[in-house]
Amino acid sequence: MSRIGYVGLGIMGGPAALNLIAAGHELTVNTRTASRAEPVTRAGASYADSPAAVAAASDFVFLNLPDTPDVDLVLFGEDGVSSAPGFDGLVIDMSTIDPGRTVEIAAELSERGIGFVDAPVSGGEKGAIEGNLSVMAGGSESDFARALPLLEVIGERITHVGPAGAGQMVKACNQLLVGSNLMAIAEAMVLAERSGLVSPAVMREAVTGGFADSRTLQVHGQRMVDSTFEPGFKSELHAKDARIVEKMAAETGTPIAAFDVARRALERLVETGRGELDDSAVIEIVREEAERDTE
Amino acid sequence: MSRIGYVGLGIMGGPAALNLIAAGHELTVNTRTASRAEPVTRAGASYADSPAAVAAASDFVFLNLPDTPDVDLVLFGEDGVSSAPGFDGLVIDMSTIDPGRTVEIAAELSERGIGFVDAPVSGGEKGAIEGNLSVMAGGSESDFARALPLLEVIGERITHVGPAGAGQMVKACNQLLVGSNLMAIAEAMVLAERSGLVSPAVMREAVTGGFADSRTLQVHGQRMVDSTFEPGFKSELHAKDARIVEKMAAETGTPIAAFDVARRALERLVETGRGELDDSAVIEIVREEAERDTE
Repeated sequence: MSRIGYVGLGIMGGPAALNLIAAGHELTVNTRTASRAEPVTRAGASYADSPAAVAAASDFVFLNLPDTPDVDLVLFGEDGVSSAPGFDGLVIDMSTIDPGRTVEIAAELSERGIGFVDAPVSGGEKGAIEGNLSVMAGGSESDFARALPLLEVIGERITHVGPAGAGQMVKACNQLLVGSNLMAIAEAMVLAERSGLVSPAVMREAVTGGFADSRTLQVHGQRMVDSTFEPGFKSELHAKDARIVEKMAAETGTPIAAFDVARRALERLVETGRGELDDSAVIEIVREEAERDTE
Repeated sequence: MSRIGYVGLGIMGGPAALNLIAAGHELTVNTRTASRAEPVTRAGASYADSPAAVAAASDFVFLNLPDTPDVDLVLFGEDGVSSAPGFDGLVIDMSTIDPGRTVEIAAELSERGIGFVDAPVSGGEKGAIEGNLSVMAGGSESDFARALPLLEVIGERITHVGPAGAGQMVKACNQLLVGSNLMAIAEAMVLAERSGLVSPAVMREAVTGGFADSRTLQVHGQRMVDSTFEPGFKSELHAKDARIVEKMAAETGTPIAAFDVARRALERLVETGRGELDDSAVIEIVREEAERDTE
């Protein structure tokens, strides 16, 4: 059994930490909102006052944080993980953050003798609770081998996709694909309804099973037909991931003009107070633009 | 057994006509390139010199033509189907054409006592040969009921999606979805390869099975990974269908900015002499734009 630190006990981190405790590991946790640690400390975890204190008590430190600056702060800030005297364990970052910065983070930790695996996930809160998340892991062979037994506790489909940063890169591509597929369905459905010839529901049913079929057509397409936008995956989180994609595209000089339309629709949802809605609500943006254009 | 006319014996029409003959129907055919009729006449079909002559010998007339003007010419041109004295049968248009014009065609034929079903298909040459095309049919209940036994000979999944024009509308949405999904994969793969962190092949493998999964990721995504662009579905045909989508969007005031990026990539393939390549070749356009932008 391992000594594991866990920083960030939100929707994803909380259940994953509980699964690690249930598997018999010794957990030390820290989180910005201390009340969030209660279910985990009740299950047997120790609470530490800072990420450095977590690291001092651990051989592995999991991170599950909102965005790139949060990961930077927890690792390199005052009382950060890297400032813990003598810590030479492995950091496993399950957050979804910038792939480029992740490459640098891994290098900076390596200079201090700390291992690193980026391990963003998909599968949502349900996957975190049930311990069957999909994990896209980046890191050296030896770091990945060390992380694997723990990743297998929290996930089911663990893919080692390349060096540090590769996991975040695959996650970025995943979010690009889902966003663009959502936008395609939104455009097709609004086109169908404005034609007056066929309802979005009938159109969706007719093309399902053919070359136009996709997981988003099945799941999010139904949400669009029903106009039920309880998340699922919140638009504000997808918008955040879309900014990561956009930054990566700018840094690599990759034209992603089609995805950019999806990104802007997600941002528009956030700007208009609908960031808490499921990302399938992008159909509302297409519908509103159509109405504005024809006024 | 029915007296069936067939106009347009290309990649899709030829095999469908053969399946109708094999089912015991009496066929009369006409096609612009007379040599294309040979396999069908060898199988027992009669050749007629014009669409009007086809209609005169038939109770049903199938059309399988390249584009909207071709359908107009065969129906309403000199020696067109509608000029056949006494023809009051049913026209079944399996071409992929303009949904708006299809609504008008159905009305004009109706005035002359001729029934109409638009029945565009998906499933490609393979589906046409094997008789398992997916058919999206538009028309009145009674016209659809008359067409159904014949559509069942050439297809397996026959969906009545609404009035005349609705079949073409669903087909347009289908082509929009496939085009946008292709473009999403192309952008994600070029982003992955330019990051230097993960190969398109590994990225595709890692996201398959999750929310980013789609039929195009499985089929066309593999073609992009292998850079094998034998069609499949030719870019020039997808570009033609994309123009239909664009026209419908303009007529209905629907913003389809994301699909527009896919449409322009397909047009670019045609302009640069690559219209015969599979539509998954849009990845080459993304790659070339990235290279040009970073020169």
